[in-house]
Amino acid sequence: MDRDRLRKDIKANAEFGALDDAEHGRTVLTGTEANRQAREYFVERLEDAGLDVRMDAVGNIAGRWTPESADPDAAPVAAGSHLDSVPEGGIFDGPLGVYSALEAVRAMQDSGIEPTRPVDVVSFTEEEGQRFASGLLGSSVAVGERSVDDALALTDGRTTLADALDSMGFRGEGRLDASEWDSWLELHVEQSRRLERADVSVGVVTTITGITHCDVEVRGEANHAGATPMAERTDALVASGEFVQDVERAANEVSETAVGTVGKIDARPNATNVVPGTVTMGVDIRDVEYESMNELVSRAEESLTILESVRGVETAHSRDFVLEPTDMSERCREAVHEAGEKSEIETLDLHSGAAHDTMHVADVTDAAMLFAPSRDGISHNPAEWTDWEDCATATRVLAGGIATLAGAQF
Amino acid sequence: MDRDRLRKDIKANAEFGALDDAEHGRTVLTGTEANRQAREYFVERLEDAGLDVRMDAVGNIAGRWTPESADPDAAPVAAGSHLDSVPEGGIFDGPLGVYSALEAVRAMQDSGIEPTRPVDVVSFTEEEGQRFASGLLGSSVAVGERSVDDALALTDGRTTLADALDSMGFRGEGRLDASEWDSWLELHVEQSRRLERADVSVGVVTTITGITHCDVEVRGEANHAGATPMAERTDALVASGEFVQDVERAANEVSETAVGTVGKIDARPNATNVVPGTVTMGVDIRDVEYESMNELVSRAEESLTILESVRGVETAHSRDFVLEPTDMSERCREAVHEAGEKSEIETLDLHSGAAHDTMHVADVTDAAMLFAPSRDGISHNPAEWTDWEDCATATRVLAGGIATLAGAQF
Repeated sequence: MDRDRLRKDIKANAEFGALDDAEHGRTVLTGTEANRQAREYFVERLEDAGLDVRMDAVGNIAGRWTPESADPDAAPVAAGSHLDSVPEGGIFDGPLGVYSALEAVRAMQDSGIEPTRPVDVVSFTEEEGQRFASGLLGSSVAVGERSVDDALALTDGRTTLADALDSMGFRGEGRLDASEWDSWLELHVEQSRRLERADVSVGVVTTITGITHCDVEVRGEANHAGATPMAERTDALVASGEFVQDVERAANEVSETAVGTVGKIDARPNATNVVPGTVTMGVDIRDVEYESMNELVSRAEESLTILESVRGVETAHSRDFVLEPTDMSERCREAVHEAGEKSEIETLDLHSGAAHDTMHVADVTDAAMLFAPSRDGISHNPAEWTDWEDCATATRVLAGGIATLAGAQF
Repeated sequence: MDRDRLRKDIKANAEFGALDDAEHGRTVLTGTEANRQAREYFVERLEDAGLDVRMDAVGNIAGRWTPESADPDAAPVAAGSHLDSVPEGGIFDGPLGVYSALEAVRAMQDSGIEPTRPVDVVSFTEEEGQRFASGLLGSSVAVGERSVDDALALTDGRTTLADALDSMGFRGEGRLDASEWDSWLELHVEQSRRLERADVSVGVVTTITGITHCDVEVRGEANHAGATPMAERTDALVASGEFVQDVERAANEVSETAVGTVGKIDARPNATNVVPGTVTMGVDIRDVEYESMNELVSRAEESLTILESVRGVETAHSRDFVLEPTDMSERCREAVHEAGEKSEIETLDLHSGAAHDTMHVADVTDAAMLFAPSRDGISHNPAEWTDWEDCATATRVLAGGIATLAGAQF
């Protein structure tokens, strides 16, 4: 593979929506000029490589390579990621997966290896969920979880996805159907420090953790901060402070991989001289086992029950969002591990705590993910960085995995 | 004294700015039509009682009774409170002190007792600090802490105090000078439950607690709530949760009267799926001894130091607002206690955790406060309530205190 070609593509893509005041970093929301430019550059690169480009009704883009060695009717192996970003995000989160998949195809073309299946290079619409949906938008349509019509009607409050795609000239036809793929691989930045710490360039994801979000309300009694003696208070914030720590303690105890976060907190009336009357919190719970996620939720509920009896607050909670953990396909993971062994590149099994389009794809076909190291674990931030050397190394393993799944001997 | 006359005045005053959707309760901000009506009604009542009405440049109103028995040049005894309210406040907080002072004068007039000093019945402008200042506005001018010009230039963002007073026709001339008073008494609702619990109708304030406000910032590292393992987090909210509890613990331990409140909290980025990176908090600390307030501040600072070393957060704090505790005058308190004994009304010594105009007045002359019970301790709320019987009982003691201070035999 050609590491300079990969680097050139990622750097070119990084110019679209580039931040003025940072060394690198970008803002690429669905339907913006930056998104149009990124899509256009991608389609040109697919065409340059001789791929057959298709764009579906929700803007998902796939370029198909059907080598002479392949049965054009065989289910293709697909690989890719996304081109959109969070506001002021990094240049690798998404684009690394898209352009490493393309580079893998170009490398296979250059090397003359002979896959028996076609290969699709894919970019899903709005993985980050920053404008029209809460995330994984394009892949939700590609796996049939959300209809094309429902997706096109999504709105950011002013514009529909349909209009945003039209304005860019990137509203195609039909529906990219992930269930038609033989298998799927996505290379992504790790967004954590495990590879960096282990000094390994390639991670192989075992499981993508499930996610559940709980809304919690703690009701005490708003009261005068001066005239209300300590013993006569029902302070919703002091109780909530215990809850936040209980969630942390429970996550530490439930399993090695569990995480529990109170990311959002709002107090009312939120005035320095008033004892807080009501506090609402948003809790994020994830783990590789659904059972341990549920245990963490139970522990959080127990904490609320104890706070009710010890601190006299009233509490309410709802569990609005549940996504069970997604195990990666054994077959796909083995293909990736084998590719690493053949190239004498060390690979490390690890789970993903972040959600990815692969969660959706895994519902309809065999899927796996590769991780490249994230410097200091930083992501969703202009400071996000993956060394070019690591990008290249991970792409070599990705290419080997795709080749194996596509039936090539190499 | 005539309890029906007092009740009629407070109920009439409660109509100005009355809430539509509550049994009682009012919103009376400085310069509003409700405030104009309340002032007009008050001036009429002062005039009906034969008092000599004066209005100063910042809208403070005083009605002077100079009985034949008094030396018109003697320093007067003054009593009163305020007529403004918080938004959706109660009907007693302020008006009880104003109209009980007027009723005390009318009762003295009716009974024929003979004070040797004049008596002023006073209403200070904007005690609640809901529009032009942070509180105690009129009394700050009356004690010379703030100049008339500075006060008139205060703005709510659109209108100056000067214009607001003009629009009501309540901008007078000169400056009500509290230092010219022989002494001052203010009857106010307790805003706490101590009198109610002790089943005593009249409280005599020993000290008004000092107040200090601290702004605290806790900085951790915002990070992905899924991809960041528990062990690699620097969660600003978990650290802040400990701080909130440390403040509570310290307040409980420092003294019987100390209160410590984290009333305000804001987390950033405040998204359920992001580990909180920065939390800012507003802390309110009060006690009757300045030393113990400082100890509480030190304990809060220690908590931050411990959190820095144990949790790896960075912290910053500033102490923006400091008001030392204000002891009430022995002479004035004795006059009130004596009045209670003469009328066989039990009185209870207690401190005030809330700030009052009397804090200012006490800087320039002998001052004391009386409390009437607050049902369930509720204030700054339409549900604020003081039984009419308690209003009358407290007014009898106030009248006795004024009479004693004004040199009357009774």
